[in-house]
Amino acid sequence: MTIDIRRFSSDQADFSAQMDALLAWEAVSDHQVQQIVTDILADVKKRGDAAVVEYSNRFDHLHAQSMSELELGQEQLQQALDTLPQAQRDALLKAAERVRSYHEKQKQDSWQYREADGTLLGQKVTPMDRVGIYVPGGKAAYPSSVLMNAIPAHVAGVNEIIMVVPTPGGELNQLVLAAAAVAGVNRVFTIGGAQAVAALAYGTDTVPGVDKIVGPGNIFVATAKRQVFGTVGIDMIAGPSEILVVCDGKTDPDWIAMDLFSQAEHDEDAQAILVSPDAGFLDQVKASIDKLLPDMQRADIIRASLTGRAALIKVADMDEAMEVTNRIAPEHLELSVEDPQALLPQIRHAGAIFMGRHTSEALGDYCAGPNHVLPTSGTARFSSPLGVYDFQKRSSLIMCSPDGASELGQVASVLARGEQLEAHARSAEYRIKK
Amino acid sequence: MTIDIRRFSSDQADFSAQMDALLAWEAVSDHQVQQIVTDILADVKKRGDAAVVEYSNRFDHLHAQSMSELELGQEQLQQALDTLPQAQRDALLKAAERVRSYHEKQKQDSWQYREADGTLLGQKVTPMDRVGIYVPGGKAAYPSSVLMNAIPAHVAGVNEIIMVVPTPGGELNQLVLAAAAVAGVNRVFTIGGAQAVAALAYGTDTVPGVDKIVGPGNIFVATAKRQVFGTVGIDMIAGPSEILVVCDGKTDPDWIAMDLFSQAEHDEDAQAILVSPDAGFLDQVKASIDKLLPDMQRADIIRASLTGRAALIKVADMDEAMEVTNRIAPEHLELSVEDPQALLPQIRHAGAIFMGRHTSEALGDYCAGPNHVLPTSGTARFSSPLGVYDFQKRSSLIMCSPDGASELGQVASVLARGEQLEAHARSAEYRIKK
Repeated sequence: MTIDIRRFSSDQADFSAQMDALLAWEAVSDHQVQQIVTDILADVKKRGDAAVVEYSNRFDHLHAQSMSELELGQEQLQQALDTLPQAQRDALLKAAERVRSYHEKQKQDSWQYREADGTLLGQKVTPMDRVGIYVPGGKAAYPSSVLMNAIPAHVAGVNEIIMVVPTPGGELNQLVLAAAAVAGVNRVFTIGGAQAVAALAYGTDTVPGVDKIVGPGNIFVATAKRQVFGTVGIDMIAGPSEILVVCDGKTDPDWIAMDLFSQAEHDEDAQAILVSPDAGFLDQVKASIDKLLPDMQRADIIRASLTGRAALIKVADMDEAMEVTNRIAPEHLELSVEDPQALLPQIRHAGAIFMGRHTSEALGDYCAGPNHVLPTSGTARFSSPLGVYDFQKRSSLIMCSPDGASELGQVASVLARGEQLEAHARSAEYRIKK
Repeated sequence: MTIDIRRFSSDQADFSAQMDALLAWEAVSDHQVQQIVTDILADVKKRGDAAVVEYSNRFDHLHAQSMSELELGQEQLQQALDTLPQAQRDALLKAAERVRSYHEKQKQDSWQYREADGTLLGQKVTPMDRVGIYVPGGKAAYPSSVLMNAIPAHVAGVNEIIMVVPTPGGELNQLVLAAAAVAGVNRVFTIGGAQAVAALAYGTDTVPGVDKIVGPGNIFVATAKRQVFGTVGIDMIAGPSEILVVCDGKTDPDWIAMDLFSQAEHDEDAQAILVSPDAGFLDQVKASIDKLLPDMQRADIIRASLTGRAALIKVADMDEAMEVTNRIAPEHLELSVEDPQALLPQIRHAGAIFMGRHTSEALGDYCAGPNHVLPTSGTARFSSPLGVYDFQKRSSLIMCSPDGASELGQVASVLARGEQLEAHARSAEYRIKK
């Protein structure tokens, strides 16, 4: 049994249109979702804990009487870690250590310099005070996401990390709790949806208001994050996950098929694309897909994803493969080639670049070190992996010497008067030496 | 004649409530504005140039037949610069040079490192391809904002900088055009409002789509930016401008009054706050305000701003002044004290810090070097001045050696199976050495 996967080639006249069709994606946040979210946000802002408890009971089928029942203690997190099977605990600790070590290199330091006349200029870098991490619950509860969201905040020096994770039906995921313990999360509330975003953004009697909310969620969560943006900071609003594999045709086609599966198994909207100058290799990978798919645990999801959104694209050569890469600006880019370093200078847009035949995306998802929260749907054109820089901010420093203020005052005066801002001009002129 | 300015002290029982009332601010983006903007965005997305021309004619009272009439050529920009009065041209060039020089220090470089087993990890930094700069038109058309938005993009290495500036009634501001020439803007369209944001976000036949849109605008522009966020990047959505002056009571009260005016003259919603441990000094500044205000060109705006939103706050000491500062997280912070450096470690949140009696905010607005696009309304808790980093983005680099992939594959396999993601596990396991 073979499955249908879109296939086309750069030498076709409609190549550009094919690419547009392949990449077309619009998150559905219709008017009804908007209105529901607006109402929930307003209600939580007004009624605080009581509203959060009500919505959590309704949407997650809980029976909580008060917000205090929806908080987990540190001892519960620690116990989850302590009771994990040894192999899982070791893997979690190893992954956390590598993620921490990589992110340490992203820390930015304050700097300043002095000009000849004594004027000092600089930039002071400080961590945020308190951040919120949204962790999806239910079947897509990923402990690795807890590490990837919390550790950069911790490395940045954030004082308090608040995690929210819905527990539909009251079910706790022990691996998620263990990851929270490993990652240094300070408080955990078992709430989710727009009500959790509202609680973090506005604060309630029990849930402390935060400065920034990060982490993935469903359409209600994404819509809520967009609406509270400005009251708090948010990370990117994520679309479905995607991978672009560029292969020279010399990697084991089973490996490539499985790499595509590892993206496709996330959900039916996930997108896996393979680009190669070798048409025969595309045939081989297709054969591997057909051979390997039936045995996969998540075969139905993989099949739906590959049928609906995947593509096998033939290009003329590696230069063209790089053009296609920049057009896609993929979340994950796998360069399964002999000399990936040689291609690097041509790549302008990609969330994470997995280089060489041995570097499967899955390694980066868990434990290589770099973050797995990456810009999706082409947003790598203008955004970056989640990082320590997302939890630090900068303040400009200006300290003019009397000479410097006198000199700059003259320039500022001319420009301020050109803008009809007299008070600006006079404020500067007071500092001009007579 | 004296004006009414809110005044309170930290030793009052309702101090915290007074602070909350002082800082309460909500941008008004009602349902009607939302709907108008949604419709304009959809229309421009669908009909492109034709829609942009129609809206520009309607809202800016123009009579353009086609989009080409709404583009300015480079020679017009250069001519604007060439025909400026010498003092203005010199001031503009001097300001641009200092802004460029400061921002050069913000450039971030790629880095990578190799682990013992040969695995390479790193971060590649690249500029965005093309960005859009929104410059307000009419009375609030500021050439300094053109410099502050365009120069960081230029320093980042952005290939193409597209500026939009509405020209209500067809009126061009020569200083704004001259600033565009100085700042290295590539193309200028005389369009504004939600239609300009839409043109930049989606692209039209004439206006190239960009990767990020920055710059201030009215409520329609801000609402449009929020809606296109995700399709393109955006900077913060700005609230009214504000200043917090912290003074030990030993600066000339006329200077401080004028510094407060320089904020208040922006618009009636602008906020100017003075904090001092010296009650007598607050009286003196109040007297200076009453004395200086009547002669100011923008006295009416200043009066409205001061009456509606300003405050003179008495604190116990400088430690408490720093607590108030962090509570406010001001856009502009002026430390008008003898030893501002001594206070710096206590400041966690501020957009820009103007240190010492000679450093008036106006110097920073125009020519000190740091950016004048700063986080407003307390958003300095989680965001930064506009900078070169806003126009660069990062890609993670991962290149596993065969040994590294084998080792990491085992960790990834355990964690992936813990998350029920079999394809992730198998993809990693293929790379484990037998």
